[in-house]
Amino acid sequence: MAYFDYTSAKPVDERVLEAMLPYMTESFGNPSSVHSYGFKAREAVQEAREKVAKLVNGGGGTVVFTSGATEANNLAIIGYAMRNARKGKHILVSAVEHMSVINPAKFLQKQGFEVEYIPVGKYGEVDVSFIDQKLRDDTILVSVQHANNEIGTIQPVEEISEVLAGKAALHIDATASVGQIEVDVEKIGADMLTISSNDIYGPKGVGALWIRKEAKLQPVILGGGQENGLRSGSENVPSIVGFGKAAEITAMEWREEAERLRRLRDRIIDNVLKIEESYLNGHPEKRLPNNVNVRFSYIEGESIVLSLDMAGIQASTGSACSSKTLQPSHVLMACGLKHEEAHGTLLLTLGRYNTDEDVDRLLEVLPGVIERLRSMSPLYRR
Amino acid sequence: MAYFDYTSAKPVDERVLEAMLPYMTESFGNPSSVHSYGFKAREAVQEAREKVAKLVNGGGGTVVFTSGATEANNLAIIGYAMRNARKGKHILVSAVEHMSVINPAKFLQKQGFEVEYIPVGKYGEVDVSFIDQKLRDDTILVSVQHANNEIGTIQPVEEISEVLAGKAALHIDATASVGQIEVDVEKIGADMLTISSNDIYGPKGVGALWIRKEAKLQPVILGGGQENGLRSGSENVPSIVGFGKAAEITAMEWREEAERLRRLRDRIIDNVLKIEESYLNGHPEKRLPNNVNVRFSYIEGESIVLSLDMAGIQASTGSACSSKTLQPSHVLMACGLKHEEAHGTLLLTLGRYNTDEDVDRLLEVLPGVIERLRSMSPLYRR
Repeated sequence: MAYFDYTSAKPVDERVLEAMLPYMTESFGNPSSVHSYGFKAREAVQEAREKVAKLVNGGGGTVVFTSGATEANNLAIIGYAMRNARKGKHILVSAVEHMSVINPAKFLQKQGFEVEYIPVGKYGEVDVSFIDQKLRDDTILVSVQHANNEIGTIQPVEEISEVLAGKAALHIDATASVGQIEVDVEKIGADMLTISSNDIYGPKGVGALWIRKEAKLQPVILGGGQENGLRSGSENVPSIVGFGKAAEITAMEWREEAERLRRLRDRIIDNVLKIEESYLNGHPEKRLPNNVNVRFSYIEGESIVLSLDMAGIQASTGSACSSKTLQPSHVLMACGLKHEEAHGTLLLTLGRYNTDEDVDRLLEVLPGVIERLRSMSPLYRR
Repeated sequence: MAYFDYTSAKPVDERVLEAMLPYMTESFGNPSSVHSYGFKAREAVQEAREKVAKLVNGGGGTVVFTSGATEANNLAIIGYAMRNARKGKHILVSAVEHMSVINPAKFLQKQGFEVEYIPVGKYGEVDVSFIDQKLRDDTILVSVQHANNEIGTIQPVEEISEVLAGKAALHIDATASVGQIEVDVEKIGADMLTISSNDIYGPKGVGALWIRKEAKLQPVILGGGQENGLRSGSENVPSIVGFGKAAEITAMEWREEAERLRRLRDRIIDNVLKIEESYLNGHPEKRLPNNVNVRFSYIEGESIVLSLDMAGIQASTGSACSSKTLQPSHVLMACGLKHEEAHGTLLLTLGRYNTDEDVDRLLEVLPGVIERLRSMSPLYRR
């Protein structure tokens, strides 16, 4: 097997699993309990909180644990906008955000907020001058991802925060970037930042929103008042502990890992682009080290993915998170691609357990797959 | 150690953990992926969904997986009310519901809904005649728990559903009852029913809302459209699988386990009530088999819990989920207790791993603890 779909799902690192297990069967207490099991759980959650904060240099704020990046994005967009509606109701969101930012923004539109979508260039890079032009006295929030999960384009987030100059809060969805490139809330100038656990080889079902001390939010999930009132529900202690461990490992290892993956990535890109009528999606340089997104004329990405799977190679057509809608990727459309171009896309994302042999195997199989599918395509003429 | 705080947190059953592990490190795919890892994950989620549905005889509806019971309650209350607001804005919620029902109801009040709280009798039993009187043409939703997590009182849910006769949707929070007593959505006549994973020895951070086919809801967490559009966010596959396994085990073993715990419970109640000026909270008969809730005059529950912990016995003062607020339990207040009475409460909840020896140990230690604390209390006079 050669797995190249790390953006859709990652295995839990064995070291993470080892850290989690005692909290499932032995130290299983509720952090709110007033006894030794409770105290131990509370301490474990606090330790994990510090590790996750440290990974993004987050000493100037708090980490709020959520059930994942999707919920963290909901909390940032809905929770911040609702709480600060008195200051204004104008929001800017990039056109290539994940659906867990875009759909909350659409929800806010129904609640009377005015949302404008920041356009992107052909490489998916956000147009910073648009933000500069549209910024108003009643703009309360700007949300831009650090890097795109599909096309790998790294956004000019520091430039955006300079343009904002504190006039509106800046939310950064760093789901795809943490562990791949440097993520430092102070250098970025973020007010809120979304972090995913599984994207750094932690367990699924947990994530975090880092929130700068000054930023005020209201909760989206209501109940017992856990997480300082910002996220109710008994804390998922084992997964939070695992997330903390994953953050600790990532902080130590990401630079070396990114270097290794960049080398594999470039080998793939260089060789795949030798296939005729193949094109790279996303930015050629400002790009996540683990991302290869290529489109092939005349054929469908899904057919490529299914053919590769039969050869023991796992890949993706784009955003697994919304692939069931059969709509072409909104990210590729925002980059100006036509429907048929977007549909011919193959997304290969690398990760911790990929080897040179995996890449050998891919480069051995892929050209034949493309050729065979094209030979069956009525659109393709030799 | 003798752990009597199963309502606050439960260990994961070893059989559940074993079922989960392969999905963390090997079969770690995203159910939306169009390759073998994705197919396997999708199948596992579907299998778990069927097991959870089966546990509550839920063939007439769908199970939507959430991040836990709190989120399931939020989805039921907010998601149902928002989606059905055109039919009416009147909602009835019992006064002893969990905060994850009460706080969403309060949120709805701010959104222009009219919420009335159903009073309870001294044993915490919901007043069914109040529902009958208050039911109006614009009543869209009634939410009553199956059994109370603090005082163990089992509610007359079938009677309530007869009174409603389909005129308003009935949401049942079955967090505390599943695994303890029979939970059958058809016998109850529920339209929505909340199930917690950890409460049946599954992992934390996952839960479900069962929804009858006819009931229409809108999502609370927005994004990629997973769970048939009702709950976005990449599926937490290992935990969902664990929840499914826990449901399967519970379906097979709950009756025998409840019988065993009922025996231990009665031994505790009979002996603890021999301590002078001690009183049982909650219903003497219509009571969860694992619940002991007793109050002692002149002393604080928290002091009892801390003293027991030093003797290796874990207990609770009431709802661990909101114990950080320092407010007396809203459940005990609704039953008509005074502040000082509510504060003297000790909650002992039994579970799968309790033995007769645990009970021996408790009954050996508790009377001395009460006596010592009373001897230090300025309120207590011999």
